Amino acid sequence: MSKSDDSRRNFVKILGIIGAGAAVGCITNENSDKTGSNIDVPSRIAGSHYMGDFSTPPLETVRCAFIGVGERGSGHVSQFAKIDGVEIVAICDLYEDLTKKSEQECKEVKDGIHKNIALYYGDTDLWKKMLKEVKPDAVIIATPWNLHAPMAIRAMEEGAHAFVEVPIATTIDDMWKTVNTYEKTGKHCMMMENVNYGRDELLYLNMCRKGVIGELLHGEAAYIHELRWQMENEDRGTGSWRTPHYANRNGNLYPTHGLGPVAQYMNLARTEDNFSRLVSFSSPAKGRKLYAAKNYSNDHKWNQLDYGGGDINTSIIKTALGRTIMVQWDETSPRPYDRLNLIQGTKGILAGFPTRIALDGGVEGATENHHQWAKGDQLQAIYEKYEHPLYKRLGAIATKMGGHGGMDFMMRYRIIECLQNGTPLDQNLYEGCLWSAVGPLTEASVKEDGMPQDFPDFTRGDWKKTKPLAIIT
Amino acid sequence: MSKSDDSRRNFVKILGIIGAGAAVGCITNENSDKTGSNIDVPSRIAGSHYMGDFSTPPLETVRCAFIGVGERGSGHVSQFAKIDGVEIVAICDLYEDLTKKSEQECKEVKDGIHKNIALYYGDTDLWKKMLKEVKPDAVIIATPWNLHAPMAIRAMEEGAHAFVEVPIATTIDDMWKTVNTYEKTGKHCMMMENVNYGRDELLYLNMCRKGVIGELLHGEAAYIHELRWQMENEDRGTGSWRTPHYANRNGNLYPTHGLGPVAQYMNLARTEDNFSRLVSFSSPAKGRKLYAAKNYSNDHKWNQLDYGGGDINTSIIKTALGRTIMVQWDETSPRPYDRLNLIQGTKGILAGFPTRIALDGGVEGATENHHQWAKGDQLQAIYEKYEHPLYKRLGAIATKMGGHGGMDFMMRYRIIECLQNGTPLDQNLYEGCLWSAVGPLTEASVKEDGMPQDFPDFTRGDWKKTKPLAIIT
Repeated sequence: MSKSDDSRRNFVKILGIIGAGAAVGCITNENSDKTGSNIDVPSRIAGSHYMGDFSTPPLETVRCAFIGVGERGSGHVSQFAKIDGVEIVAICDLYEDLTKKSEQECKEVKDGIHKNIALYYGDTDLWKKMLKEVKPDAVIIATPWNLHAPMAIRAMEEGAHAFVEVPIATTIDDMWKTVNTYEKTGKHCMMMENVNYGRDELLYLNMCRKGVIGELLHGEAAYIHELRWQMENEDRGTGSWRTPHYANRNGNLYPTHGLGPVAQYMNLARTEDNFSRLVSFSSPAKGRKLYAAKNYSNDHKWNQLDYGGGDINTSIIKTALGRTIMVQWDETSPRPYDRLNLIQGTKGILAGFPTRIALDGGVEGATENHHQWAKGDQLQAIYEKYEHPLYKRLGAIATKMGGHGGMDFMMRYRIIECLQNGTPLDQNLYEGCLWSAVGPLTEASVKEDGMPQDFPDFTRGDWKKTKPLAIIT
Repeated sequence: MSKSDDSRRNFVKILGIIGAGAAVGCITNENSDKTGSNIDVPSRIAGSHYMGDFSTPPLETVRCAFIGVGERGSGHVSQFAKIDGVEIVAICDLYEDLTKKSEQECKEVKDGIHKNIALYYGDTDLWKKMLKEVKPDAVIIATPWNLHAPMAIRAMEEGAHAFVEVPIATTIDDMWKTVNTYEKTGKHCMMMENVNYGRDELLYLNMCRKGVIGELLHGEAAYIHELRWQMENEDRGTGSWRTPHYANRNGNLYPTHGLGPVAQYMNLARTEDNFSRLVSFSSPAKGRKLYAAKNYSNDHKWNQLDYGGGDINTSIIKTALGRTIMVQWDETSPRPYDRLNLIQGTKGILAGFPTRIALDGGVEGATENHHQWAKGDQLQAIYEKYEHPLYKRLGAIATKMGGHGGMDFMMRYRIIECLQNGTPLDQNLYEGCLWSAVGPLTEASVKEDGMPQDFPDFTRGDWKKTKPLAIIT
């Protein structure tokens, strides 16, 4: 669901797509492997600690800084500024106009709480200066994919909690570096998967926890969203920096929106089960090349790329318990939006797009059995019975505040609430890394014509200690 | 969609589940491999010929015999008896009552055309006697899975064309034996995949041939049909012989209903493309054990089985052109029926359950673009524009005659029509084998924790010579 901002692309332009991690001087773990199929688990760095259920002392006011305030990041500023307990202390972007636009939004928040906002713009390295000078409690990062890890790492090293757009990183190596910094610094680092706060996702999480569909067996997750039009961002904006990814990488490049919720239904990396391995195939790469040929002149840069990333990638994840998750990604093909959002158990099935529920023997009040999807009033009754307490508490305000139907607001609200209460966040970094690891692992599997790739265990076996996500009330 | 009859189980009982092929003396090819991941292609037997577009001289009257006339086979007799040009000459089943019931149905057909029907019942080997004595033109076989190949092989050896229920066989070895006999005897052998004659499947085939959705990239196919209740067939009937398959094998045991149509959309094994390899994972096996424990006494035979076959199997096929097909199978979980029936191209997507169509830029008459599925009148307009000529010609009579909504009748009608006209059948044996091969290949992949398995090329490279399935008018 993330959208990018104009400024992201320019970070890429200057730092370069590859190797940005090293460029900003993040911790290097010599034991980690650079390939996607890394199954060697590097040792935990001396003095570091497992962070599965990590929490920090309550923070009355959370001093927030932002790196990247374009199309996605500006939404973060705008809503965080309106949450009680937040003080906006700094905004950093390449562009003066974007920086000042976000500053203005903050100033318009009632009571004028955000009085002293330090602004940084005009140079690619100013975010580092900002971290040093402002010493924020939390940094919200919405920059191009390859910058997520190095920026999160530096933020933690400078004493801030890091909140990062999806995916957390694009290489297994960068994920290990992020985990190592997390465990060494004892700072929060959360990949902000907003879809886990969707109404249906919360409903299904609640139903799974209550055992409504029995033992969980299989899930399906996708990000199917036709975004060819983003190529109109030729020099600035999402398409400008994402298009080269689509051309140069072949796999599932954007797996977390569909997968995050399904992983939490299954309690993956939380006591019960964990990611084990995956297999992946991509379809031929046709759509982007055809689109470029149709919409741009022969000598346009979009017609100079060799589009190597298959239009649709299909993968299957196997978990430690032997459960399966079918995962798909397609931002190219002309078809309606879909995240699948399917979870199947021994007593029923919950699915999305549209919302579909069938329970063993049938749902309450239905004459049909599980051979039929629940309809109208029956679905309504399920919402009433199993609506997630968090949605009951925040659904109305979240819907009003908006952001992908309210899920964005609910995520931002929960981040601040957890920091204020000193409770663990709803998503730990190990989850963010495991969900994101589908990117490089599918690339490796596709490259090896479907060979299974093992997930690195970023928890180093400690996932068994991490409590299932609580049903937050 | 196939249902079985009471008699099937007893063939199994006496011949044994394994090794039935050898027991009936079929051709043995010493070069073939018994594992699912057989990529060695045995040489064609001397004097044999490739049969991709094979046809036989026109037959004015097709003398038909039947082996197995239980729940599925009785439907075959009943409808074939009503098709012009068919003469029913023999019926064979273990049970006298089933045999005579089918005979009676034939006698009731107007004009009393089926006067001399030889009946064979009471012994497991009588079908061989029937083949020798009656010398039918065509034999329709609806017996347990493991008997399909040996019966088809013997039928061809005795000079008959063989028409066999799905799957054609359960081992790669049996598939090669069937292919070798086919090529040596020059008799038709068709696995009767009825779903290829469904209205939507024909519509989609027509749309794919006309290029409506551009270059084909990806398909999805499934047989998701909760059939736990079949376990009530304790001593006779489908559940009695299928349940041990579910317990003892782990993979996609019944792939062809979903896959057959998608394979023909893509022209697999027909000039354009072919099956290349697959990867497969099964979920844990839970549902059958739970069902048995809930519904049967502790000492019941269904509670003595060790259910090893995962409730849902998910696989991905890759084709020679790099296209992908996601294939699923689940006859256990409580969820609504689904075959997915999805085909995606560079210009649109066609999907099933329910019928969903979206075309690049939107369908005719719609204000929405391809981000929306066509609705109501728009869908109707698509049916009118692209209805398959075969459905236009036979849809009304097929719907009236019935059999899974008419697809059964259309298939049976086409079989006779092709034999009468001396044209190639709509499905050759190579297709039946490739579609069925997903069974043993997924078993092998699951056993090897997701390792890719190559498809045997049953055509020995000759698929490039086989014409695409004609748009039959």
